[in-house]
Amino acid sequence: MTPRTKQDAYTPRPEHHFTFGLWTVGNVGRDPFGEPVRAPLTPACIVEHLAELGAYGVNLHDEDLVPRDATASERDRIVREFRHALTQSGLKVPMATTNLFSDPAFRDGAFTSNDARVRQYALQKAMRSMDLGKELGAETYVFWGGREGTETNAAKDTRDALAWLRDALNFLCEYSIAQGYGYRFALEPKPNEPRGDIYLPTIGHALAFIGTLDHPEMVGLNPEVAHDTMAGLDFTHGVAQALDAGKLFHIDLNDQKPGRYDQDYRFGAVDPKQAFFLVKLLEDAKWQGMRHFDAHAYRTEDHDGVWDFAAGCMRTYLILKAKAAQWNTDAEVQQLLNEARARGGRAASEPVRFTPERAATLKAQSLDVAAMRQTGFAYERLDQLTIEILLGVR
Amino acid sequence: MTPRTKQDAYTPRPEHHFTFGLWTVGNVGRDPFGEPVRAPLTPACIVEHLAELGAYGVNLHDEDLVPRDATASERDRIVREFRHALTQSGLKVPMATTNLFSDPAFRDGAFTSNDARVRQYALQKAMRSMDLGKELGAETYVFWGGREGTETNAAKDTRDALAWLRDALNFLCEYSIAQGYGYRFALEPKPNEPRGDIYLPTIGHALAFIGTLDHPEMVGLNPEVAHDTMAGLDFTHGVAQALDAGKLFHIDLNDQKPGRYDQDYRFGAVDPKQAFFLVKLLEDAKWQGMRHFDAHAYRTEDHDGVWDFAAGCMRTYLILKAKAAQWNTDAEVQQLLNEARARGGRAASEPVRFTPERAATLKAQSLDVAAMRQTGFAYERLDQLTIEILLGVR
Amino acid sequence: MTPRTKQDAYTPRPEHHFTFGLWTVGNVGRDPFGEPVRAPLTPACIVEHLAELGAYGVNLHDEDLVPRDATASERDRIVREFRHALTQSGLKVPMATTNLFSDPAFRDGAFTSNDARVRQYALQKAMRSMDLGKELGAETYVFWGGREGTETNAAKDTRDALAWLRDALNFLCEYSIAQGYGYRFALEPKPNEPRGDIYLPTIGHALAFIGTLDHPEMVGLNPEVAHDTMAGLDFTHGVAQALDAGKLFHIDLNDQKPGRYDQDYRFGAVDPKQAFFLVKLLEDAKWQGMRHFDAHAYRTEDHDGVWDFAAGCMRTYLILKAKAAQWNTDAEVQQLLNEARARGGRAASEPVRFTPERAATLKAQSLDVAAMRQTGFAYERLDQLTIEILLGVR
Amino acid sequence: MTPRTKQDAYTPRPEHHFTFGLWTVGNVGRDPFGEPVRAPLTPACIVEHLAELGAYGVNLHDEDLVPRDATASERDRIVREFRHALTQSGLKVPMATTNLFSDPAFRDGAFTSNDARVRQYALQKAMRSMDLGKELGAETYVFWGGREGTETNAAKDTRDALAWLRDALNFLCEYSIAQGYGYRFALEPKPNEPRGDIYLPTIGHALAFIGTLDHPEMVGLNPEVAHDTMAGLDFTHGVAQALDAGKLFHIDLNDQKPGRYDQDYRFGAVDPKQAFFLVKLLEDAKWQGMRHFDAHAYRTEDHDGVWDFAAGCMRTYLILKAKAAQWNTDAEVQQLLNEARARGGRAASEPVRFTPERAATLKAQSLDVAAMRQTGFAYERLDQLTIEILLGVR
Repeated sequence: MTPRTKQDAYTPRPEHHFTFGLWTVGNVGRDPFGEPVRAPLTPACIVEHLAELGAYGVNLHDEDLVPRDATASERDRIVREFRHALTQSGLKVPMATTNLFSDPAFRDGAFTSNDARVRQYALQKAMRSMDLGKELGAETYVFWGGREGTETNAAKDTRDALAWLRDALNFLCEYSIAQGYGYRFALEPKPNEPRGDIYLPTIGHALAFIGTLDHPEMVGLNPEVAHDTMAGLDFTHGVAQALDAGKLFHIDLNDQKPGRYDQDYRFGAVDPKQAFFLVKLLEDAKWQGMRHFDAHAYRTEDHDGVWDFAAGCMRTYLILKAKAAQWNTDAEVQQLLNEARARGGRAASEPVRFTPERAATLKAQSLDVAAMRQTGFAYERLDQLTIEILLGVR
Repeated sequence: MTPRTKQDAYTPRPEHHFTFGLWTVGNVGRDPFGEPVRAPLTPACIVEHLAELGAYGVNLHDEDLVPRDATASERDRIVREFRHALTQSGLKVPMATTNLFSDPAFRDGAFTSNDARVRQYALQKAMRSMDLGKELGAETYVFWGGREGTETNAAKDTRDALAWLRDALNFLCEYSIAQGYGYRFALEPKPNEPRGDIYLPTIGHALAFIGTLDHPEMVGLNPEVAHDTMAGLDFTHGVAQALDAGKLFHIDLNDQKPGRYDQDYRFGAVDPKQAFFLVKLLEDAKWQGMRHFDAHAYRTEDHDGVWDFAAGCMRTYLILKAKAAQWNTDAEVQQLLNEARARGGRAASEPVRFTPERAATLKAQSLDVAAMRQTGFAYERLDQLTIEILLGVR
Repeated sequence: MTPRTKQDAYTPRPEHHFTFGLWTVGNVGRDPFGEPVRAPLTPACIVEHLAELGAYGVNLHDEDLVPRDATASERDRIVREFRHALTQSGLKVPMATTNLFSDPAFRDGAFTSNDARVRQYALQKAMRSMDLGKELGAETYVFWGGREGTETNAAKDTRDALAWLRDALNFLCEYSIAQGYGYRFALEPKPNEPRGDIYLPTIGHALAFIGTLDHPEMVGLNPEVAHDTMAGLDFTHGVAQALDAGKLFHIDLNDQKPGRYDQDYRFGAVDPKQAFFLVKLLEDAKWQGMRHFDAHAYRTEDHDGVWDFAAGCMRTYLILKAKAAQWNTDAEVQQLLNEARARGGRAASEPVRFTPERAATLKAQSLDVAAMRQTGFAYERLDQLTIEILLGVR
Repeated sequence: MTPRTKQDAYTPRPEHHFTFGLWTVGNVGRDPFGEPVRAPLTPACIVEHLAELGAYGVNLHDEDLVPRDATASERDRIVREFRHALTQSGLKVPMATTNLFSDPAFRDGAFTSNDARVRQYALQKAMRSMDLGKELGAETYVFWGGREGTETNAAKDTRDALAWLRDALNFLCEYSIAQGYGYRFALEPKPNEPRGDIYLPTIGHALAFIGTLDHPEMVGLNPEVAHDTMAGLDFTHGVAQALDAGKLFHIDLNDQKPGRYDQDYRFGAVDPKQAFFLVKLLEDAKWQGMRHFDAHAYRTEDHDGVWDFAAGCMRTYLILKAKAAQWNTDAEVQQLLNEARARGGRAASEPVRFTPERAATLKAQSLDVAAMRQTGFAYERLDQLTIEILLGVR
């Protein structure tokens, strides 16, 4: 493979910490209405290509690597060969996860199936997969509950389902502790698809749920651009709330139009402005986590197109990172921001800690509300400057 | 007014704890493209009519009752007359809230405005409004941050905005404590409108945010059907999560089509199936809170239509409550549920508390996954029975 | 199979003209994240069961019956056996269609692929499939262009794609005429999935496109509840517009939540109110077409669940049909409607045909606008009565 | 006013044919939850500022200029003064329209109200407004039916409403002819807001409806970015279909996130990629119509912000126009497009006109489908190049 992109300021390197899933560049292009359009790639082939493109690591579900019905010795051989490929290429496996959605056994959910045997099977599969992840060096363990949900609320009481889900996560936290795995768990919310309505549909719901667990300190989030965007939410706001709570453990970068099926497009391909603010947030926060691309090539593509896709994800991230730096040092942008923030003077902008006196004073105070109403915030100008930086004409 | 609905099993009475906002039945029908279609109603008139219809209480924003520029003596007269109307009618004021969205001063937010003076004004207004609420006997205090958000993420860092919002709520919690008000605060999330993207857009985000406050025990939720539905989320799942966390402090009942402007339709008017599951959840949980209708009549209506609307909200709730009871005792429904839940036997369905031995046993165990894959869950049958109960043909 | 539904006023019979696709009850439950959960059913088995349930007919894509790589003699045997099954069961095949979406060759579209060879292949496949349909007695021929669309508008100019699509439909109209097939073509619009954006996304777009064809009189619509609902549109309004244009040639009944992936739920399962108005419209219009259910059972179901699903579709239609009749004769409903329509008297309600004199008179006339503004329309009352009829409490 | 934008290659000039509505830059910032934030501007002031910014024209509703209750002499004075302002500034009035939505009389619709008197009033108002538009030189007359729709389908049969709407448009076409006005009518579709569901919700529906009118040749479309985007549709596809049908008579440029209230943001502010493809389509088609901005400044803005907003709309259009030209001459982009289009050779790409022989040959022909399946379309590469042109790094 000869990457079609040129070497320049936007060329990815391992220190950028870009990662892909085996299932992303390995996606064969099957969809609900059509057959695969691409032959499967071996994990070794994927690893080799990603390394050439400048990626840092590769992530996986248990079944991405080891077929569900592999014998123990087959499993060991596969893992050995994969570790060899990793060593050869220098790629890491920073994150692992369990496939709890493909097997027909999970048709009513995994941890939340009404069938108690299935709930046990899900636990078993998760433990085995955690073992595999650790063997490959993973430090973050993702839980995406794609089958945890309903098509009809007649099927079960949501409160039961949430209790089952909590039981399972508590159990697996203990398992990680007992095994000395040191995993950080990252919950990945999604509003719907493949279930009609999935439990913990957004960043907010997952964040709130963590607070009800036995080991909240071990558990954080793996938000995905496409998922909260499906519900039409501002993804950057959600990520900021996760950062504010110290809970951004991992991130899935891709793109999506609101209000439709899960599209998993190339990062920045749909909404470059939203992608810009997201990159800016991550970089401003000096966030240290992996930039994982959970996306796949259009179904129109062959294997060359897959590598174009992968290269494009990383390249666009780096372009937007450079633009974020430019924005942060643009004199007019910064002046507009400072003006908005300086209103009312220094006194007003001090944090409002409560004391009875302060409350009494403030309550009785005569405020110049007329003045507050008068001046605009110049956000049209600020946003236009942002657009012009984004479009590269400034 | 002669209510046009007949007296029967679905006639509302005060013990049903139905409440309305002054701003709901008092809505004059202005919208972004049109002028008012109805004359304003006095608070006294509203109270009288709601009492006749069988409501329990009426809720308000400060400005619903007292004009923004009223003098102290005008304010006192208005409050006195309103208390008289309450006494006459027997109606309570269980909830109060602050209007932090109408005044042009709040155009960039109230607690999260970039203008520090506005943040102070918002605190002042909230304290004064809490005083008013307490004077009228309110026990729940709602915060809807309709102006807390952005049209462009260039305007401010979400992390700053969340910090300001937290400061404000912490301050007001302390104020409630210091004044001995004993309020329970209820945050009301909404995804967008009037701002492009509002902070804390869903039940989940608000629930998570509470965990970051100084007095999380004082703060819960006031979820609204229309709001989470605007984002296409299953409202019942969200309410169940709030109940699971002990945080359902209040509820706003109305109706809405997903993916569009805030419609605030009559309860049950759009999606009677969702409304059925919501009523069932609240009744199954024996939830003790107020059933508040935050809705308004179609703009096609005159005052008669407003009272039809109000009567319809309550009547539909009671119809659905009766259907929930029927569902809970329908033999076939219950048999289907029991069959789904009994799979795998008693042993399997015990809660899965972690011990190293249990984990080791489960990990090594040979499970009959083939059996789990085989049998369906009969949810089509279950849902069809639900539909037939809903449609009254069973 | 023993249908689990009882025999009563809502029991379907062939004269109700209910049809299903082989692909609907035959759906094996594969989705983008999971493997099949049900074994395939033979066409003969499907036909037998549908007949038992009271259906009138069964519809098919070419590939639902004849595998893509069947030899001529295999094809003939399969068709012969299927015709035998039809005769045995009494079922008809009123509609046929071409699968132009599963084959990887169609990844960039069928009639609109940038690859001219693919456009030829699509024509060939459609002609052969039209031959098959005619052999089975089909009178309506559906075109669903699931692959006609884009993920990026860089790929082609929409105007080229529309021209290719028009060429293909013109060609196939001529083919139907030349062969003496007498088909009525029915275009099936869909906004997205499997393509990012599908051409002719709604009823409106398809209806407009027909006007640009060489034989507009041969071509009409096959609207599907789920499809326009995905875009959040009022499906009943769209169907009414198709009826108004004389273009409702077929209909696909199912259900769907707005703003998400294509769910194809059991008819009436999500939005019984919308389903009610749809059934009322079709029955009020005395529409003679087939009531086709293009839906499938939840993935939680086994084969028993599939037949529950199929029975439920038809049963709910008949329940709603009875309710529509009730609504049409409910005295209070009719009175409210008549009052709204009678305003302004007979003179005002006469059709407004233009004459210069009439225009001049009307333009100069002094109208009592104040009176028009005063009275409401009592739609809250009317809608509440509708809800009560729907819920069976009236 | 001193425009804050610099003079450069993207500075608007009258020959670019940019227009604004009086109601757009004149928007006072009222919304459903808040009071006006800006004082009204006089039409004369608006005209003067727009001219300074480089606009070509200004458009209006009757009530934007002449208050609803003006006397004949007041009206004449207002019009005279406005014409003077136009002459002074050099601005044109290329389009006019009727406000058929603000008056409470239109609460159930204008041309489709159940109240026949209202339908007459709407006709009268439209004729008078057409007179005004012609007096100011307008050539395009827009119809936006914001109140033509329903909150409940119980209120009226859509087929009646469509018939009334057709009667009205037919009447007004005749009026335009009889008066010698020579108007081109442009229908403006919108899916919802302010009505629950508006009739003719998309470009497609409006386009189809035109075909049912008495004078289809006089009637075309005025599509608006925000409106079809509210329904999540690809606006560029819709505009291309209108162009294909020769029916793009006018266009409303702005921006919008899908699945929410009508936002009317600055052109290009939300989705610059979609805006790029739209500008490219209009310029590639050498479309001669007005580039009208139907948008308004954020509510955070004062009057300075309004002019920033107006300048930004035009500037972004010109930036994107330059990028479209760059894309059309980018060698790698064009090579990728040519490769995709050249597949199968010249023979295959000739238009497929039907002859019985050609059909027979094609039906029998052995096609190399395997070859069609093999090669991808390189759209990931093509789209990435597009993104890089858009972001100005290529």
